[in-house]
Amino acid sequence: MSLVGQPWTLLVLRDLFNGVRRFDELADHLGIARNVLTRRLAGLVDDGLVEKVSYREPGQRARNEYRLTQAGWDLRPILLAVMAYGDIHLAGPEGPPLLLEHAGCGGSVVVRVECANGHPINPSDRLRALPGPGARYLSPTPH
Amino acid sequence: MSLVGQPWTLLVLRDLFNGVRRFDELADHLGIARNVLTRRLAGLVDDGLVEKVSYREPGQRARNEYRLTQAGWDLRPILLAVMAYGDIHLAGPEGPPLLLEHAGCGGSVVVRVECANGHPINPSDRLRALPGPGARYLSPTPH
Repeated sequence: MSLVGQPWTLLVLRDLFNGVRRFDELADHLGIARNVLTRRLAGLVDDGLVEKVSYREPGQRARNEYRLTQAGWDLRPILLAVMAYGDIHLAGPEGPPLLLEHAGCGGSVVVRVECANGHPINPSDRLRALPGPGARYLSPTPH
Repeated sequence: MSLVGQPWTLLVLRDLFNGVRRFDELADHLGIARNVLTRRLAGLVDDGLVEKVSYREPGQRARNEYRLTQAGWDLRPILLAVMAYGDIHLAGPEGPPLLLEHAGCGGSVVVRVECANGHPINPSDRLRALPGPGARYLSPTPH
């Protein structure tokens, strides 16, 4: 599945990142048609990003909730990096529409690029690209 | 401009991140039709991600080179986060196709999510979402 052309999929992921897990809560919160939500969740399950888990509350019928897999959670840094870019370059004079805090301590969330030796890497710092173990073809870079 | 449906645009950005700046070098390195490259670069200039700068070498006619703006450089963490995800979840048993090193010290490049108080934030650690100063509408999150 591609996320392209599926804006609802991103919003479903955002709600899952925020701890919303139940079909009814997702549908209510997103204001999305239930058949569309069903398809989006099925796509996320097929891609291994979400798993469907059955639960039953006392006196109720069995229902499903949807939990991010490790591969799903690992998408979060990409969305946080996109959000940080938007806050700097696209938010307009009012400032960011949404703030994210570390739930433990209230510190705001930041995405940092560093090297393994702990040096911060600034946006225009030079990186060296090398073929990795899975390289099949790497065209030479001039300079 | 949207990057969607424009795979060449991402490859042009990658080369610009790697220090390739001149039209002829970009065209040769990418193996891209010159009219397509011209359109992709014009789109990046229109979006404020790239600037076109004239230069002249001794005895040569004036030529253009293309330099990332700050907004262009600031896209790099997003691409690095996408690359890190691919290396973990999509690279296959051979391993990553490409390695990136900090040119200063040779340390491999890592994207970290932290809070402003320096606590590492793991992929499934809970974050708290709050309306920011530019919030227009924020639907309540259940839970």
